[in-house]
Amino acid sequence: MKHTPSLARLIDALRTLPGVGQKTAQRMAFHLLQDGRDGARALSESLTTALARVGRCRQCRMLTETELCSICTSPQRDTGLLCVVESPADVVAIEQSGGFRGRYFVLMGHLSPLDGIGPDQLGIRELEMLLDTGGVNEMILATNPTVEGEATAHFLSEIARTRGLRATRIAHGVPIGGELEYIDGGTLAHALAGRQSLL
Amino acid sequence: MKHTPSLARLIDALRTLPGVGQKTAQRMAFHLLQDGRDGARALSESLTTALARVGRCRQCRMLTETELCSICTSPQRDTGLLCVVESPADVVAIEQSGGFRGRYFVLMGHLSPLDGIGPDQLGIRELEMLLDTGGVNEMILATNPTVEGEATAHFLSEIARTRGLRATRIAHGVPIGGELEYIDGGTLAHALAGRQSLL
Repeated sequence: MKHTPSLARLIDALRTLPGVGQKTAQRMAFHLLQDGRDGARALSESLTTALARVGRCRQCRMLTETELCSICTSPQRDTGLLCVVESPADVVAIEQSGGFRGRYFVLMGHLSPLDGIGPDQLGIRELEMLLDTGGVNEMILATNPTVEGEATAHFLSEIARTRGLRATRIAHGVPIGGELEYIDGGTLAHALAGRQSLL
Repeated sequence: MKHTPSLARLIDALRTLPGVGQKTAQRMAFHLLQDGRDGARALSESLTTALARVGRCRQCRMLTETELCSICTSPQRDTGLLCVVESPADVVAIEQSGGFRGRYFVLMGHLSPLDGIGPDQLGIRELEMLLDTGGVNEMILATNPTVEGEATAHFLSEIARTRGLRATRIAHGVPIGGELEYIDGGTLAHALAGRQSLL
């Protein structure tokens, strides 16, 4: 059975959402057009508004509605520490952990030459400008522990080295609450190699 | 960390989608505002268009962009058979099975007095009108095999009885390709009770 044109277009649009396939998109579309009409209106409006208002912080590339984001403008932040992450979701996760009081730089991706993502796409020029305007003592490389994330971290560490800056990588190891017997070998090897002295 | 107002509104709107929680909504919002801006625009537009154009078929309550849906207007359909289902997704599923050439009536829900869903909300008056204008010989009750679905089917069978119409219920039993040892007891009991003679 073929969907009507507007419905088919809506289902196609919903399928571009991460983790949404044909069946889920259809379920969402039916919901939006049946019981969820108010929600559908709110979604359409909030999308338009967000597209118009949400841009990137001029300094750290985080999503923001002002020229500079709330973290970059906060006087309570340690400007000597700069944490480089792949995505805005990583900033949210680190903020929720409460373990960091410095500032961020959001790459919006990782180096991936095959997909045409090089230093320009990741805002490396903005990052270098931020480093050169000074104040940063240490760059914490918090890219994902994937092949591309590691390559990106290595690339960034070179940028730090040429400037005589300290570059650190977040620790890889056994997650808190995890049980050793269920942890994969790569993580265990990292945990052992990165062991720390207790005395 | 608090999201900016437009972002927070977008995340709230995405959370009204079925099966989407806070974390998924945030992931979708970030995607829509980063790489998915074209998709976001398309989604907003297709939502507005669909809300304006997609309504319900005057006869069967299926979602449609015309006064009568394509199934109700098709001359190839057996007007003697009417299959009553709970939702448009059920129509799509039955159409895809290819096993039915009659027409449908979509309740858009099931009887659920506690939620304030009675015969009026399910369009029972429209259904009765459809039955009274004639042509229907058999009403196939294809509501879900849940407590509410069964209650709705029972209610509908009474409507058929008062009109001297034949009412049938779809068969419940072991799904094709399923293995007996993994089927729940209720389904097995139905499969045994509904056994059919082979000779």
